[in-house]
Amino acid sequence: MNRVPETELVLIPGGTLLTDTPEEGRILAITMARHMIHNIQPDLDVLKAGRPNYAANPDSLIAASQVVAIEFQTIAAANNYWRK
Amino acid sequence: MNRVPETELVLIPGGTLLTDTPEEGRILAITMARHMIHNIQPDLDVLKAGRPNYAANPDSLIAASQVVAIEFQTIAAANNYWRK
Amino acid sequence: MNRVPETELVLIPGGTLLTDTPEEGRILAITMARHMIHNIQPDLDVLKAGRPNYAANPDSLIAASQVVAIEFQTIAAANNYWRK
Amino acid sequence: MNRVPETELVLIPGGTLLTDTPEEGRILAITMARHMIHNIQPDLDVLKAGRPNYAANPDSLIAASQVVAIEFQTIAAANNYWRK
Amino acid sequence: MNRVPETELVLIPGGTLLTDTPEEGRILAITMARHMIHNIQPDLDVLKAGRPNYAANPDSLIAASQVVAIEFQTIAAANNYWRK
Amino acid sequence: MNRVPETELVLIPGGTLLTDTPEEGRILAITMARHMIHNIQPDLDVLKAGRPNYAANPDSLIAASQVVAIEFQTIAAANNYWRK
Repeated sequence: MNRVPETELVLIPGGTLLTDTPEEGRILAITMARHMIHNIQPDLDVLKAGRPNYAANPDSLIAASQVVAIEFQTIAAANNYWRK
Repeated sequence: MNRVPETELVLIPGGTLLTDTPEEGRILAITMARHMIHNIQPDLDVLKAGRPNYAANPDSLIAASQVVAIEFQTIAAANNYWRK
Repeated sequence: MNRVPETELVLIPGGTLLTDTPEEGRILAITMARHMIHNIQPDLDVLKAGRPNYAANPDSLIAASQVVAIEFQTIAAANNYWRK
Repeated sequence: MNRVPETELVLIPGGTLLTDTPEEGRILAITMARHMIHNIQPDLDVLKAGRPNYAANPDSLIAASQVVAIEFQTIAAANNYWRK
Repeated sequence: MNRVPETELVLIPGGTLLTDTPEEGRILAITMARHMIHNIQPDLDVLKAGRPNYAANPDSLIAASQVVAIEFQTIAAANNYWRK
Repeated sequence: MNRVPETELVLIPGGTLLTDTPEEGRILAITMARHMIHNIQPDLDVLKAGRPNYAANPDSLIAASQVVAIEFQTIAAANNYWRK
């Protein structure tokens, strides 16, 4: 098996939900969502094989962006929405 | 690859979740959802190829509007629902 | 293109999430969900063409009502659940 | 058209999210979800025609129960979870 | 019709969202989700007929576990997350 | 039936939603989601039979990661987002 590198399996990169800016919070949401996928399916070849269909399918893109939106809800709340 | 312009890839346009009005908050939700899609699939030709099927399919439209509804929950909370 | 009228494209009709009653809040949730669809697909003919299949399909009806339920969560929180 | 009776179209029956008990709150969630469907599709014959497939399909039952779960989140929060 | 027993139709078994432990809260979430299904489809034979396909289908299992996750959000909040 | 071991059926392993770090909270979210699946379908052979299709299907992976995201929302709130 062509395994995803260990750094791609860390569930919460940086070990905290707190970020300096909303943009960084959004990047964390994306990373958390992607690393979650890697933990369920750590075989890079299988992931790459699914990529073409997935990334060209609007419904799959919408579903993926929904997961990021949910992760971002958590991160935004953690950061008190970066108010002030 | 016909890449989406850089401005379309900014995750949180304006760098804040705070807006003056609910209408602007809703626009931000839409933009965040759209830019998220662009980050997953930055090839404009692929995006355009999927558009006709997606935009004429009620189930896809419902799914897309659900993502915006979730993003808007976060933005509305950030703005204390624009009370007062 | 037979474009949806401008009034059907306003994202937050009335410009506020605050309503006098839960019933009005629910109507706002429905309107926000419907206008969101219109913003993604503003061609009235395409929308009408999809309507017969969508509105007779239980799974599509359930999906649409879920979007309204999510929008309503936001509106209900904004109104402190119309307590008292 | 064999139209759903008017009482089945009221969005928030009773006009409030507040209930005396969790059981009544759950009933309200179910009613709100069902009346929402009726508002999107008020033709009773169409609704009845879809019922056999829908109610025998586990995935549809799961989807419908998810909508109720989301409505119930709102109602439970409105009632401060009926604590004490 | 081979009707689900009355005890399986109670929407909130025990009549409260409050539980002593997270484990009991999770059990309540599962029961609420299952009883919801029973209320929509109270025919035991229909439920049993759908079971083999549903319980062997990973996507259906994921969908069902999502409903429990949503019910559990409500119950956990009601119990202040069993802190202390 | 080749039954999932009892330890894999505990709904909230450790009996608490509180964890020391976000990483541990995320692990708990994954475990809760997986054990939920085991409770619905405790036959290990059926679970293993579904695994190849599921784990190679991007849409299934996205759906599974969404359930974890929802469980994590609850756990993160329980831990006050591990602030400070």
